[in-house]
Parts: sequence; C-alpha cells; structure tokens
Amino acid sequence: MKKFINQIDDMLVESLSGFAAAHKDLISLHLDPNYVTRIQKSRQKVALISGGGSGHEPMHTGFIGHGMLDAACPGHVFTSPTPDQMLAAAEAVENGMGVLFIVKNYAGDVMNFEMAAEMLSCAHATVTTCDDVAVENSTWTTGRRGVAGTVIVEKCVGALAETGADLATCKAFGDKVNRHTASMGVALTSCTVPAAGRPTFELAPDELEMGVGIHGEPGRRREPMRQADAIVADLVGAILHDLQPQNGQEILLLVNGFTGTPLMELYVLYHAAAKLLEQQGMKISRSLVGDYVTSLEMAGASITVCLLDDEIRQHWDAPVHTAALRWGR
Amino acid sequence: MKKFINQIDDMLVESLSGFAAAHKDLISLHLDPNYVTRIQKSRQKVALISGGGSGHEPMHTGFIGHGMLDAACPGHVFTSPTPDQMLAAAEAVENGMGVLFIVKNYAGDVMNFEMAAEMLSCAHATVTTCDDVAVENSTWTTGRRGVAGTVIVEKCVGALAETGADLATCKAFGDKVNRHTASMGVALTSCTVPAAGRPTFELAPDELEMGVGIHGEPGRRREPMRQADAIVADLVGAILHDLQPQNGQEILLLVNGFTGTPLMELYVLYHAAAKLLEQQGMKISRSLVGDYVTSLEMAGASITVCLLDDEIRQHWDAPVHTAALRWGR
Repeated sequence: MKKFINQIDDMLVESLSGFAAAHKDLISLHLDPNYVTRIQKSRQKVALISGGGSGHEPMHTGFIGHGMLDAACPGHVFTSPTPDQMLAAAEAVENGMGVLFIVKNYAGDVMNFEMAAEMLSCAHATVTTCDDVAVENSTWTTGRRGVAGTVIVEKCVGALAETGADLATCKAFGDKVNRHTASMGVALTSCTVPAAGRPTFELAPDELEMGVGIHGEPGRRREPMRQADAIVADLVGAILHDLQPQNGQEILLLVNGFTGTPLMELYVLYHAAAKLLEQQGMKISRSLVGDYVTSLEMAGASITVCLLDDEIRQHWDAPVHTAALRWGR
Repeated sequence: MKKFINQIDDMLVESLSGFAAAHKDLISLHLDPNYVTRIQKSRQKVALISGGGSGHEPMHTGFIGHGMLDAACPGHVFTSPTPDQMLAAAEAVENGMGVLFIVKNYAGDVMNFEMAAEMLSCAHATVTTCDDVAVENSTWTTGRRGVAGTVIVEKCVGALAETGADLATCKAFGDKVNRHTASMGVALTSCTVPAAGRPTFELAPDELEMGVGIHGEPGRRREPMRQADAIVADLVGAILHDLQPQNGQEILLLVNGFTGTPLMELYVLYHAAAKLLEQQGMKISRSLVGDYVTSLEMAGASITVCLLDDEIRQHWDAPVHTAALRWGR
C-alpha cells in the first residue's frame, strides 16, 4: 500500500487540518468530536448538516459554505461518524430554524444520524439520499445506496435554505430532488482502505465492476472491459429505466470521477452520455464533470441524471461558495 | 490497459467534444486544426494562448475564460501541438494588442511555438515556464521543465492582461511570476499512454520516484516508500533551496495532484508542507489544493511555492471564470 500518510491513525486529523488551513476563509475545524462548520454562523436559516465516512472527498467537507452545507461530520475512512459529532455540529450551527440532516442511505450513517436526531432538542428532519439504481439492497444498506446524486441534493436544498425557507419546506424539497435523481457507477480498479492495507476487491486486468458502490461494494455484475460507449449505454439505460423521463425532459448531467480516472476520460464519458441522452430525447441544460464523490484512489466513474424543473434549476443555479463548488458570486 | 475510451485515435476529439459540450457557456471548440477559445472574443487585450500535449487536464483548456487564457491548443497525449493549431488560435483571438504564448519548457512545445511565432504577422512574445527544480535537463527538455507552476503564471498574467496591459508588460510579468515559482513532484505509480498501452515506467510496490516529470520522466532518484512528512521535507527543501526566500516571505502554496491520489491525501501533504514552510519562516497567505496539472492516471503529487508580492497577489486574487478555476465573480 503506497499512500501519502504518516501514521494510519493520524491520517484523518492531518487531512482535516490541512483542509482547514487551506480554506480558513471558508470553514472552521473542530476536533474531538470532529466536525467542520462555516467560518461564520449563518444568518437565520435552516441549518444543513451532512456527514459520512471519509475517503469520498470533496464530499462533504468541500460542500460547506454559502449556498450549501452549514456543517459536516467526517467519520474515519468508510466509517460512519458518531452521534456526538452530529450533536456538536448541530449545537454549533443551529440558530432557531431547526436542523436538516442530509444522510446517504448506509445502515451505519442512518442509525447514527437517527440517534443524534433523537437527542436533539431543536426541530429537525432528515433527507436520506438513495440515488444509486445499481442494486436494490447492498452489503451496507437496506434499500438503495446514496451516491453522487447527494451533491445535487446538498446544492439545491442549500440554495433553498438560504432563502429562509422553513424546515418542512427544505425537507420536502430535498426528498423531491432525491426522487428526481438517479446514478450508476463503474469501477476499473479497487480502492485500498488504509487500515486494511490491501485492495477491497480484486479485478482482473481486463475486468470491470458494473454498478459498483462508492466503498467498493459489488454492483450488478463483473464483466470484461468494453469500450466507453458500451459502458455508458448500460449506465444511462439503467438510469433512464429508473427515472422514466418524458420526451423533451430537461436534465442536469453529472459525470463524477472516483479519483483514479483522468479528467480526459471523464470528458469521453460525458461525450458518450450526452450523445445518448440527446438521442433519447433529453435536453441537457446543466452539466458538472469532475471528482465530487470519490472512493479513495479507485479508477472509475458514475453517471448521474437529475430531472430538472423550474424549482430545481433555479436552486442549482443559485450562488454557491464552497471549497469544491463555487459559482455566482 | 483499462481506460474509458472507444478507439485510441478518437480519444482526443471525443474528450474535447465532451469538454466543449459541458462548458458551452464558456468555450468554443474548433477541430482540424484543434484549438479551444473563449466563447466570445474578448474586448481589446493581449491574447493569451497556451497549449501542450493532452493528458494534463484541466491544463490548459480548463483555464480558458475571463481572467486567464483566450485559447489553448491541445496536442495528442503527451505530444506537442503543431504550429497550424497555434496560428489558427491566434487568428481567432488576436484583436490588435498582440499574442502572448505561454509555453511549458519541453523541446517539442518550444520548437512548435517558435515556428508559429515566426509565422505570426501580429506582435507576439513568449513566456516559457520552467518551475520544476527536480532536474536541470531531462529527457524532453533543455533546461528545467515547466510543471504545475504554469497554472500560477497563466492565472496571474491572465489577470494582468484583462487590465489592458500591453504585450511587453504581460511578457515581463509572466517571466517574473515564473522566476518567483518553484515546484517538485513525486510519483507513486506510473501512467499509461493510451497509444503505448503499457506503463511508461515501472515502480515496485514499495518504491517512489522523487522529482518525477509530468510525463513520467525520471526525477532525482528512485527510493523506498516513506512517510508523507519525510517526502514533503525533501520536496519543500529542494524548492526553498532554489527560491532562497527571505524570512517572513509571503507565499502561495499549491499542492497539485497528478490524478490517482485521493484528495484526502493531498490535504495530508498540504498539512505537512504548510507546517514545514511555517517553521522555515514562510507566511502562507494563498492556497490551492487539487488536480490542476495532471499526468493521465498517475498517483502522485507536486508541491509548488510562489513568492508573493503585492503585484502577484493582486493578480492571483483577481476574478477568474474558467472550467477549472473560478472565483471573484
């Protein structure tokens, strides 16, 4: 295992400390329990808090800032954060309008955020993302996994919360964006969890894992390597089968890298996906290409489609100022 | 070789087409000869044009837009673009104040940009970047290589050009930023050039290449894998030896990933580098962490330090609106 680390046990805190130092204009790091907040308490608004295992950066710490999250709770690599982190984060950022947790659907995350919610004294609600159409249940979930579509949920609900919308409205909108969003991924290599020291799974030099999860969970099938167009056809086919969009539907297309795939190849995937989606009658009006929800050093990518309407488009376009997403101001 | 491609010969055009489709609000793609320009011709200003082999994305196409480049000429993977591309790009974006080429110091790039410059009928000048302190000459260069510091040169000169500064002023400032900037990289894995189909070099599971070039050129030495702090100490030591900064010097710190290194590890490197630089009396006032000058799927990273003064800081901070760098408007 070759990684840029010192001691495995120190990796998370050193990485968070580097993040905090590089972005001290935006965020503030609190240790023990570990959570990251906006540098300045927001004006009165619903407080958006997310979190999950580390190893998926920039999610979620990279999405803290104006127009997106108020705080994030990073667990150890691929390990849920604990309720004390969520409670401390809520205490730090809540300011009278309640807390909305945004949680990817993994058993550990769901359980820990539920425990935190039960202990919260303020108003609270939870949006659970489950955009991965690859498998219905998986190693770590009951029901579908939350993957790259989570970025779109956090961005859009973040924008709505900035308008002063109340907790119930933010919760309902988050659920709606999640319902409008579907993703599927493919891995060309495994990742290696530092504490394990060896690849999570083995793929032959000519194999890919279709429908892989962002922790390396098995997908739909393992199959021989194919050309980009054929891989994309299967991903897009599964997504459209799930979303059942109407002809002429306006969409946001996200091509998300897991880390080890060159940007040059992500744009090859975007080209293939856009061509296919347009052939299927979709109108791509918004795009995002890059590494947003990663899986340590895994080579691979996912495709996400979000069905846009006026409300979702407006909140996607609204200003955002975070370490990893920034536009409009 | 597992890559998201269809036919190797189509990879570049498909990737550029995907880039153009995803960023049609910013840039425009021209094929045969291949070049990318801002979607709208700028108001009168020096036209900044860069280019080089592909496989380093987002450099250079990702840096086209307000406050940075006017055009970029992508060659095939790790292969210089040709003079006809540069001439066509210059024709498209020059508007009376001349053309400034920004060229990384590699023999093929330098020769082809020189040939284009000789054929240009408008005023022109060239800034050649050579920030890599690892080796004096290398496989592909006479003199030092241009690597991640090129981003800082393109950003700062791009901001100056927007103010209406003349060609000679932009050229002199570009040379100054280059002189103020030093970089060094380290590889944990090789990359694989698609047309070659096998890794450019071999590294054992416990080895790293210290001082690697962005095409996988040899560096200073191959050595056993070490902890992040020790690796960073060597990189920072070489950079400071070259720059000879004064105590209390204000700097910009760039930690650049080559693709295959998780963002979580890049922040571990940032943490280590910042700690060391501050111990050495440096004052880090600006930071950038991410994949900006990549080497296909290579796992590895580089550290770049730029010595700031009022002029460089001002132009670094100025608004930029490109696919890969965006702030301030």
